[in-house]
Amino acid sequence: MVGGIRAVERCDALGHAPYSDMAGGLHRGYLTPAYAASQQSVASWMAEAGMTVRIDVAGNLVGRYEGTASGPALIIGSHLDSVRDAGRYDGPLGIMLGIECVAALHAAGRRPSFPIEVYAFGDEEGSRFPLAMLASRAVAGTLGDIAHEPVDAQGVSFFQALRDYGARAGVPVAASFGEYAAARHEGAFAYFEAHIEQGPALETAGLPVGNVTAIAAQKRYAIQLTGRAGHAGTTAMGLRRDALAAAAEMMLATEALALSAGGEHVATVGTIAAAPGAANVIPGVVRFTLDVRAATDAGCAGLAAALLDRFDAIAAQRGIKLAADLLHELPASPSDPALMDLLDQAIGAEGVPIRRLMSGAGHDAMILSALCPTAMLFIRCADGISHNPAERVAVSDVEVAARVMLRFIENLEGLRNA
Amino acid sequence: MVGGIRAVERCDALGHAPYSDMAGGLHRGYLTPAYAASQQSVASWMAEAGMTVRIDVAGNLVGRYEGTASGPALIIGSHLDSVRDAGRYDGPLGIMLGIECVAALHAAGRRPSFPIEVYAFGDEEGSRFPLAMLASRAVAGTLGDIAHEPVDAQGVSFFQALRDYGARAGVPVAASFGEYAAARHEGAFAYFEAHIEQGPALETAGLPVGNVTAIAAQKRYAIQLTGRAGHAGTTAMGLRRDALAAAAEMMLATEALALSAGGEHVATVGTIAAAPGAANVIPGVVRFTLDVRAATDAGCAGLAAALLDRFDAIAAQRGIKLAADLLHELPASPSDPALMDLLDQAIGAEGVPIRRLMSGAGHDAMILSALCPTAMLFIRCADGISHNPAERVAVSDVEVAARVMLRFIENLEGLRNA
Repeated sequence: MVGGIRAVERCDALGHAPYSDMAGGLHRGYLTPAYAASQQSVASWMAEAGMTVRIDVAGNLVGRYEGTASGPALIIGSHLDSVRDAGRYDGPLGIMLGIECVAALHAAGRRPSFPIEVYAFGDEEGSRFPLAMLASRAVAGTLGDIAHEPVDAQGVSFFQALRDYGARAGVPVAASFGEYAAARHEGAFAYFEAHIEQGPALETAGLPVGNVTAIAAQKRYAIQLTGRAGHAGTTAMGLRRDALAAAAEMMLATEALALSAGGEHVATVGTIAAAPGAANVIPGVVRFTLDVRAATDAGCAGLAAALLDRFDAIAAQRGIKLAADLLHELPASPSDPALMDLLDQAIGAEGVPIRRLMSGAGHDAMILSALCPTAMLFIRCADGISHNPAERVAVSDVEVAARVMLRFIENLEGLRNA
Repeated sequence: MVGGIRAVERCDALGHAPYSDMAGGLHRGYLTPAYAASQQSVASWMAEAGMTVRIDVAGNLVGRYEGTASGPALIIGSHLDSVRDAGRYDGPLGIMLGIECVAALHAAGRRPSFPIEVYAFGDEEGSRFPLAMLASRAVAGTLGDIAHEPVDAQGVSFFQALRDYGARAGVPVAASFGEYAAARHEGAFAYFEAHIEQGPALETAGLPVGNVTAIAAQKRYAIQLTGRAGHAGTTAMGLRRDALAAAAEMMLATEALALSAGGEHVATVGTIAAAPGAANVIPGVVRFTLDVRAATDAGCAGLAAALLDRFDAIAAQRGIKLAADLLHELPASPSDPALMDLLDQAIGAEGVPIRRLMSGAGHDAMILSALCPTAMLFIRCADGISHNPAERVAVSDVEVAARVMLRFIENLEGLRNA
């Protein structure tokens, strides 16, 4: 048996001081005192599960369980850091489940043919520096695109924080992006991550777990509409070029087109500002953001193009000037088909209906996909709430997830030996 | 002949120092040094036109041209104050046209049977204190609804500013709202105001002037929508309760219903805010303002009710909580039917097609309507632009307005003698 309840209890135990950097809530920043305290506890749990423990040059905590043969490892990981005023399960639950799987193997005196490494990644959330997934990028060796060393809100530079941390922990850490990128893991054949869904799909479907098909491709735009400001009382409806009315039509089109594009597409207008911004003035300029995501790069590009075409038509018809700037884009990170099949088998063997779903949010798995094939298991969470102290999971769901993961590891054995 | 060009030139002359309180633009606040300087010049023009000049207890400048008989006067007025970074014609043009009419009568050695008083009202814009139309309310005797003495941005109280002004000008001014309201004009049989349209209707119709049917009734609401915030990536379109998408549907309904209600109805969403306000978060709460105006109280109430009904239906269908708070409302101030007919005759006699239109903006006339029947003449302005240094009028339009006004005064003679 694997201990789903213990995984949840350990997440709860890490939910407050000394494991949090903020009073009255949970915030665990990369390389902070709360982070160090958390690493100490997690390291003890890893050791208790039969793993040898190390801290790598990026400050990640790693537990290793040797296989019956040497060779590439299965990495099971998630992140130890958190957003400000966080929930307790976003990240730590995937680490605790990895430890539980190893603990179950260890207790049964079993070893797979391959080594298992459980990673507690230091930074997924951008919890301290204005860049996210710094720690998993080090493991994946994909730090080449970072031009400037980030600095935290207190003015502490990234490598200074890393050196301080290494000195306190007595471990040699990287002193440059070059050394940091040299943490690249050269011996992994697969990466697996369990994570709370952070959305309502599994809850709506009444399922404890789901198989993640891909981490979504994403395009984000800044849209600016320029019409003509005017007096709200003196400008007849037919003579207006109201930038906010145009934005309203575009927002409804966004909703309608994303809905009709099907389940693995979402599009969101999350911010809006109208100028000059007085109750008695017709808005002359409106700015809003458009966030488009889909399970595939083609799906994301197709929906984004359809939306921008529609925006163009609305703007032209209303005599509004439209500017659309691409703020950023991420390619989709698809899960490995063979690993997904193994995970489906494990889910089915637990008597759970198989549900494949897209991850709209980013995860360390998208970074690790540069290194090896990846798979992800989503766990139902209450009301889709995350990044919030109200984040909750059911122990019974976590127990299902733990059993599924153990079966998946067994199934991997077959794949490795095939 | 009446001098439209001189009226425009005088407005231009008052458009800068010493007649403005701000450098590099026009701002003339009630009872400021720029206001005093402007009163001096306008007083000299009034005297030159054959009027006796006084400053009343509210600090309004008044020129009086006696009639051949005593009895109630025709008041011709508009305001001398301005918004910050104002245009030059919003207010002063109506005063200058009143002076031109009297000057023309005086030059021809003619007097109507009734006195004419030209009022340069001190405050229409709320140009110094956080209350508008203070000065015309004194003349109308409708100050009973003002509970607290307003204070300007520098902390100077209203009556202190008025006492200081009275001392400098050597005139006795009011020391309390009671005395101020005692400025009520007891001898007026009609009020007439010429004003730039501040909208695009006359320009669109190709007309120099128009006859104002009413100053619009107005209702303004604060709308709050509460849906459910969620992750923009992880919440499928069909599972969202997006407060901003609901607002978008309401804004389009606002535009459509106001348009279908006909020309004397307008409705505007001028401000909007979405919370939490991040590109990757579905908005959970949206606040916006709804401003509804119509030529009649019933038209305004009907459109507002139809909009709120529609908002209710949209909110219910989307699972959104709706709160609508009435922020303020103003009854319509209809022009007097007999005076409108006389004004139509004067416009027609100048060979100008007759166009009646609503004023969506407030004017001193709506305050004076508590005292006597009112009428207003709108003058075309370029691109509907007002409250902006780019405010412009054509001299030829102002000349038409001056001739129409003089004919209107002659027509009034007939009405008074009928």
